[in-house]
Amino acid sequence: MKVIEVNKRVLEKNDDIASSLNQYLHDRGIVLMNLLGTPGSGKTTLLERILERVDCSKIAVIEGDLYTDSDAKRIEAFGVKTIQLNTYGACHLEASMIKEAIYELDLNGIEVIIIDNIGNLVCTAEFKLGEDKRITVFSVTEGNDKPLKYPLMFQTTDILIINKMDLIRHTNFNIENFKKDVWTLNPQCHIYECSAYRNEGINDILNIVFLLNE
Amino acid sequence: MKVIEVNKRVLEKNDDIASSLNQYLHDRGIVLMNLLGTPGSGKTTLLERILERVDCSKIAVIEGDLYTDSDAKRIEAFGVKTIQLNTYGACHLEASMIKEAIYELDLNGIEVIIIDNIGNLVCTAEFKLGEDKRITVFSVTEGNDKPLKYPLMFQTTDILIINKMDLIRHTNFNIENFKKDVWTLNPQCHIYECSAYRNEGINDILNIVFLLNE
Repeated sequence: MKVIEVNKRVLEKNDDIASSLNQYLHDRGIVLMNLLGTPGSGKTTLLERILERVDCSKIAVIEGDLYTDSDAKRIEAFGVKTIQLNTYGACHLEASMIKEAIYELDLNGIEVIIIDNIGNLVCTAEFKLGEDKRITVFSVTEGNDKPLKYPLMFQTTDILIINKMDLIRHTNFNIENFKKDVWTLNPQCHIYECSAYRNEGINDILNIVFLLNE
Repeated sequence: MKVIEVNKRVLEKNDDIASSLNQYLHDRGIVLMNLLGTPGSGKTTLLERILERVDCSKIAVIEGDLYTDSDAKRIEAFGVKTIQLNTYGACHLEASMIKEAIYELDLNGIEVIIIDNIGNLVCTAEFKLGEDKRITVFSVTEGNDKPLKYPLMFQTTDILIINKMDLIRHTNFNIENFKKDVWTLNPQCHIYECSAYRNEGINDILNIVFLLNE
């Protein structure tokens, strides 16, 4: 019982920090995107495909990981300002961590900050990070039963990107049932399909999701 | 800071319950297995392939899910005693929940209890559930960089099953690097390869992992 109370206090405090962070960035004309999904859903690969197509000087990336900096190195190779956040085992990022990361960033010329969240379909969904939009990356190899099993992630996302579409013919993933379940949970959710690995379907995501002037 | 202290107390209390639960089951000649992995790694499909091959009267299954009972229904169809544990949003199972589930089970004739854990590569690894063995199911579509990114799961598992081997040729999964990283973290880890969906490689897992007399 005590744990739940503490958790509630943590969430309320987190939401306050997230709101003020969102306002801080709005005042500077900067958009904050939160990229979520399971480990291996393809978040970082998708981000690489996006960075290949945009003016990287306008973008900063905050990489969330338990321990390593391997994803941050992949992203930094594009010449993007990158901050690595290591949680040392904790399963989610919190708004206070993002605030700290943003204060470390030189925001001059930055129009979009993208958070590449920790791989987790449960805990990360609970924590607002001050984002304008949540983008969830979900791969067809994860199975079409997941929206009903892990509803919070699908309820709270603004955009859902179905990744690894090149593998769908090798699986029993029922995309119609999947979309139906997502829209039952979240009628406003925008759904896109792509294969980040095969570099297919990226332009649609780019134009609509990131609202960048190229 | 306070959250971490509470978390530590929770983990210590959990470990005590797990130890006494393990002793309780040992005294009755029952083995407890903990099946872990990300959402969509193939835990429940693998369990189905196993149940097709064994005497189901000797097995009970505890299904962990946030809300649904869809997996429990899939397992119950095999005539296995099944208990559904719903955490209502919480990201992991705790030993006290397993204890409660086991007290609900008629243990007469049961030799093996299998916990089909919540899909999560982070939080579930922290909680001992009184198991004799941890079995982690990991699919090649999740990427070979994950052991170093999510080390606790790979450090604490006794057996690692690489699933979806039928898809490996469509991915850039480097199985040699993957195994090298797993064994660096956990030299004792037993690794098996299979495709639960294609029903391939199941017999080896069955004989060695479940120690069942068929």
